[in-house]
Amino acid sequence: MSGNTFGTLFAVTNFGESHGPAIGCVIDGCPPGMELSEADIQGDLDRRRPGTSRHVTQRNEPDAVQILSGVYEGKTTGTPIALLIQNTDQRSKDYGQIAQQFRPGHADFTYWKKYGIRDPRGGGRSSARLTAPMVAAGAVAKKWLAEKYGMVFRGCMTQIGEIAIPFESWDHVPANPFFAPMADVSELEAYMDRLRKAGDSCGARIRVTAGNVPIGLGEPLFDKLDAEIAYAMMGINAVKAVEIGAGFESITQRGTTHGDSITPTGFVTNNAGGILGGISSGQDLEVSIAIKPTSSIISPRQSIDIHNNPVEVVTKGRHDPCVGIRATPIAEAMLALVVMEHVLRNRAQCGDVQTQAEKPESASPQASFL
Amino acid sequence: MSGNTFGTLFAVTNFGESHGPAIGCVIDGCPPGMELSEADIQGDLDRRRPGTSRHVTQRNEPDAVQILSGVYEGKTTGTPIALLIQNTDQRSKDYGQIAQQFRPGHADFTYWKKYGIRDPRGGGRSSARLTAPMVAAGAVAKKWLAEKYGMVFRGCMTQIGEIAIPFESWDHVPANPFFAPMADVSELEAYMDRLRKAGDSCGARIRVTAGNVPIGLGEPLFDKLDAEIAYAMMGINAVKAVEIGAGFESITQRGTTHGDSITPTGFVTNNAGGILGGISSGQDLEVSIAIKPTSSIISPRQSIDIHNNPVEVVTKGRHDPCVGIRATPIAEAMLALVVMEHVLRNRAQCGDVQTQAEKPESASPQASFL
Amino acid sequence: MSGNTFGTLFAVTNFGESHGPAIGCVIDGCPPGMELSEADIQGDLDRRRPGTSRHVTQRNEPDAVQILSGVYEGKTTGTPIALLIQNTDQRSKDYGQIAQQFRPGHADFTYWKKYGIRDPRGGGRSSARLTAPMVAAGAVAKKWLAEKYGMVFRGCMTQIGEIAIPFESWDHVPANPFFAPMADVSELEAYMDRLRKAGDSCGARIRVTAGNVPIGLGEPLFDKLDAEIAYAMMGINAVKAVEIGAGFESITQRGTTHGDSITPTGFVTNNAGGILGGISSGQDLEVSIAIKPTSSIISPRQSIDIHNNPVEVVTKGRHDPCVGIRATPIAEAMLALVVMEHVLRNRAQCGDVQTQAEKPESASPQASFL
Amino acid sequence: MSGNTFGTLFAVTNFGESHGPAIGCVIDGCPPGMELSEADIQGDLDRRRPGTSRHVTQRNEPDAVQILSGVYEGKTTGTPIALLIQNTDQRSKDYGQIAQQFRPGHADFTYWKKYGIRDPRGGGRSSARLTAPMVAAGAVAKKWLAEKYGMVFRGCMTQIGEIAIPFESWDHVPANPFFAPMADVSELEAYMDRLRKAGDSCGARIRVTAGNVPIGLGEPLFDKLDAEIAYAMMGINAVKAVEIGAGFESITQRGTTHGDSITPTGFVTNNAGGILGGISSGQDLEVSIAIKPTSSIISPRQSIDIHNNPVEVVTKGRHDPCVGIRATPIAEAMLALVVMEHVLRNRAQCGDVQTQAEKPESASPQASFL
Repeated sequence: MSGNTFGTLFAVTNFGESHGPAIGCVIDGCPPGMELSEADIQGDLDRRRPGTSRHVTQRNEPDAVQILSGVYEGKTTGTPIALLIQNTDQRSKDYGQIAQQFRPGHADFTYWKKYGIRDPRGGGRSSARLTAPMVAAGAVAKKWLAEKYGMVFRGCMTQIGEIAIPFESWDHVPANPFFAPMADVSELEAYMDRLRKAGDSCGARIRVTAGNVPIGLGEPLFDKLDAEIAYAMMGINAVKAVEIGAGFESITQRGTTHGDSITPTGFVTNNAGGILGGISSGQDLEVSIAIKPTSSIISPRQSIDIHNNPVEVVTKGRHDPCVGIRATPIAEAMLALVVMEHVLRNRAQCGDVQTQAEKPESASPQASFL
Repeated sequence: MSGNTFGTLFAVTNFGESHGPAIGCVIDGCPPGMELSEADIQGDLDRRRPGTSRHVTQRNEPDAVQILSGVYEGKTTGTPIALLIQNTDQRSKDYGQIAQQFRPGHADFTYWKKYGIRDPRGGGRSSARLTAPMVAAGAVAKKWLAEKYGMVFRGCMTQIGEIAIPFESWDHVPANPFFAPMADVSELEAYMDRLRKAGDSCGARIRVTAGNVPIGLGEPLFDKLDAEIAYAMMGINAVKAVEIGAGFESITQRGTTHGDSITPTGFVTNNAGGILGGISSGQDLEVSIAIKPTSSIISPRQSIDIHNNPVEVVTKGRHDPCVGIRATPIAEAMLALVVMEHVLRNRAQCGDVQTQAEKPESASPQASFL
Repeated sequence: MSGNTFGTLFAVTNFGESHGPAIGCVIDGCPPGMELSEADIQGDLDRRRPGTSRHVTQRNEPDAVQILSGVYEGKTTGTPIALLIQNTDQRSKDYGQIAQQFRPGHADFTYWKKYGIRDPRGGGRSSARLTAPMVAAGAVAKKWLAEKYGMVFRGCMTQIGEIAIPFESWDHVPANPFFAPMADVSELEAYMDRLRKAGDSCGARIRVTAGNVPIGLGEPLFDKLDAEIAYAMMGINAVKAVEIGAGFESITQRGTTHGDSITPTGFVTNNAGGILGGISSGQDLEVSIAIKPTSSIISPRQSIDIHNNPVEVVTKGRHDPCVGIRATPIAEAMLALVVMEHVLRNRAQCGDVQTQAEKPESASPQASFL
Repeated sequence: MSGNTFGTLFAVTNFGESHGPAIGCVIDGCPPGMELSEADIQGDLDRRRPGTSRHVTQRNEPDAVQILSGVYEGKTTGTPIALLIQNTDQRSKDYGQIAQQFRPGHADFTYWKKYGIRDPRGGGRSSARLTAPMVAAGAVAKKWLAEKYGMVFRGCMTQIGEIAIPFESWDHVPANPFFAPMADVSELEAYMDRLRKAGDSCGARIRVTAGNVPIGLGEPLFDKLDAEIAYAMMGINAVKAVEIGAGFESITQRGTTHGDSITPTGFVTNNAGGILGGISSGQDLEVSIAIKPTSSIISPRQSIDIHNNPVEVVTKGRHDPCVGIRATPIAEAMLALVVMEHVLRNRAQCGDVQTQAEKPESASPQASFL
């Protein structure tokens, strides 16, 4: 309720600050009996981890996850799974001056005004470091959804600053530090090098998808699957826009082209992004998000201090020149968490989704649409 | 939890179907002691009402609201406010064939697959008619926020199909059926007439804003104010994308320009759309949404029936050729509901927001930023 | 969240006041496909209805329920079921003076202090009349649980004032106005007649049970099934105590006798009241509640008015001399709502409860315990 | 939602198992700006700690709490407060056989049936050890409520087995291991020694109260303050019954005596237990609970194993012969958590409770009732 728990049936409560002793989360509601170990979670954490290329922050955190509860003899017990990640490379001395000033584009001002106090070390609670526990929780959701439905979650960068990134193949994504679906990323690297030298930052666009989606996920009227995805994505640090399917392009489309035709073997197009009336249709979920340029830059900015005096702010410390670069595994995780929640909700009200294909009324089994 | 309640502290539970006897909602959590009558609500309902121009559905519904509870001697008592709107102009015979077929782009397919049953009369629960109770609830929230903070919620259409609509003045918005902020809408009318004759539909872009916003609304990590707005907007029928502030434009911005500079008298720009780190900064909230073209069109579409046979679907009945036309008051209402919820949340944890300006730590009172 | 919604997955939002135009509720989350009509609900409402004997309030309300939504062609659609009950026999003139005074033992004082305003007509929102929508919602839950699991909910009065009521048979319960499980209630009638003549009121004890309970309902640590039942029961007007199983008697029991022994064919005793560690064991749920004497009595009482002046309060109007008399169907309904909620929760996390007997690990099928 | 989070605005998410590496909780929603250190929490933890007398389990746990987040420079920041308690004295070898058997009166059977898996080490998740994080969270709530309203939470044992414990003075409670409000506890010690030698256990009754209670806490219809207290108390391990105020005694009371008279200087009696219509009246909250005898006893019991074979169960390990002995600080903590939640809820809807005395309508300021 105070905004640090994501989900209700698969509820992830996040805690910690960038430079506190540890960060982590508690997952409540995980189905029992699934095999789970730290190794199942560490892979996605490593994809998000800082310090892995010269294009991201040089903070060196192993982000090693520890399972504190909820697993017995290698299997989930249905009780809360507490995940702990120690902070090891805090350098709070870098942030001394920041405690008295508000960085433009940053949460400094609003945290101060809301709470009358804020932890300025590394951005405190507003740091993107707090996405790490979500990536961990998302890995748990992904594993269950993969085992139960064969679901696949994938993401990639489709634009960085002015550079649109063509989709060549999912295979390229793990091979470069940008999560770009293209073979040759030298242009992106050169672009980022120039930007870093200029002491500036840029935005990015990320695409994230889910495949083998069960039909029937999402609730009218408000907890529509697309509404929940929009909530999850817009809650990621620095996200300023979210599209489902055709997104803004749908404004200029005609009803005769936008509405995806249906045939006995499946949908012909996917302008809907896999969601009709707020409920999953079995098509791939298609989501696109805009990430703003990093606020923490070394170029001087005009601002005020906590006494309302004008100041010039220069943000030192170690920051990502494009926070979008590490956003791909985060967006995947958030999408997985939304889907997981709605799988559980759906079987609460409607029974297990897998059995829908066998309903006598349903002559067109779900499988034919996947 | 099953998706028909919006909000938690100011919780609006929506019920009804397009062609049932009545629709309505129950508002739980309204602060006590506010003067409230049907007249305070009817105004916004009339703005959303069908049948008011040739460019929207010709269904004739007075949408007269009745307060069933929660008001005593003209004042709210703090107990649930039940609002009832009778349906008077259902013509369910128009929808006979639809019961066996899935309209492309419509919720028919997914409701059927999820629930194994659906009410096909007028779209049943998935009809945009169910936004009427939200407009009613939003009017209650708007009234309280206006009285307490002087808040102002405004919306307008900024694009319809291919036609971008320039912003001339808020004053023009009530004077035309499009909620367009321009004096001469004859081009829009001609465009819509052509579209209707072609049996087709188009999308639209709507902008919605809030002024005199208290600082400090929104919760980390997940119930960020922008995340909640995205959830609210994407939950409106036919919305496919949501932007806050600079939105997708932020991808190509630089950190040196995107981050809004701060001076002792306020922010210089508003790329943030009034939200930093998920918390309101006191600047105007700025939201933009994309609405897809109406799915219910008279042009024939390829689809299947409930037995998976191919069919050609032609949607008769009375429909809006651009559902975006009536979306403006809906988007305003949803924004007001989000803000109302977060005002109550904020004072639960942090005490009354109005007193923040008086905190000794806060040398720059909120007022200077508004 | 503001306390007028019961349950989360099977969520019942209650609205209305004793003397407003109507009362009712919205049920969100009902599984789709169940046959449902007003007749399925009216039976329990009639059991709770006022005016049916000289021992209860003479207010004459038919309590006829109308289904406004959520049912199509006689079946639930999975969307909200709105239930409306018109108030027809309000006599608000009876309550004029009460608006300025606080009746001892009544909610007058606390509503006034909390909200700064209250609807005094018939107790307004605090009237036991608001249990009628819960009885209606409970009837929906009972029907689904009966069809799916063969569950049976029963209640009876076990004490009224000083008179302990022996359990003879469930068959007697419908045959007398006290819901007493005994054949001859003449002693109870004489007792109540004396009390009414004396202008006084008394308390009662009600027992409520559930049979054919699925194993596995209830969540650790907090939403234990017994904790949820205690919450539901204590929320009924005038309830001051709740026991599960052996209840207060367990204080003097020994561990060697309290802990119910288990054999391959089932439990030997039921001190647990059907719940172990907060989770249903498959035994009957056994609950007992204490209901305080009616606060609204004709005998003069010492109190204050809203200006803190001492006054003597005499409550006219039509009241139940023992509110416990009509409490049995209410307690049954609340128990059914708790069970319904937890059946849905359980299948969200653990899959359908019916399939547990078939798990290979579970050599002792659930059926052997029922 | 899956039952491991208590509260909504002051939400405490509990995790851990009796013999896992650590237990703990995350508090979300704590108001910012309160001074808080481990020392503020450790005191109540020490009161609940095992191994402090021969009458409780000899497990030796320091229960040293560590604050992982949410506090900066000694003050709460409004972000989640994670509390960690290491388990140090697990001896899981004591529990080998138990993994295959169901102890009568214990959660073994139901956890196994619900989840298909359970952690048998020390009772796993169902162990009363998991009340430690709640005592820690309760200490945070108590501190805030004491500083803001001068609230005082107190509890004592009023009965153990057959022995009723007279109330002499609150001063005696800290001076004996039973939390008994009497000077000479030698009879209780002898009673417990006999019981322990007999390999048996007994129940207890605990009274818990709150003083300086703000008026107006609690929500109609369902989240009544008494309903929430009942939920909180019944959720404590081994609790089988809850009373508010006169409790079961109210059955035989008359309306003329039960309803507490009001005078300009306050209430005359407190049969209501401080709650009218579900809302706090400003009088002391008075709660009484029944705790069943410990299920884990050394005397042999008849039961079954997981293959449904009959077995004789003897529970070795280290257990409390009366779990009620350490229940007092737990019950206090749960009461404080309920009150804290409702203080925040109340100021969300009605504004700060402290200001109610100043409302012009309220001629009788709250203070005169305390």
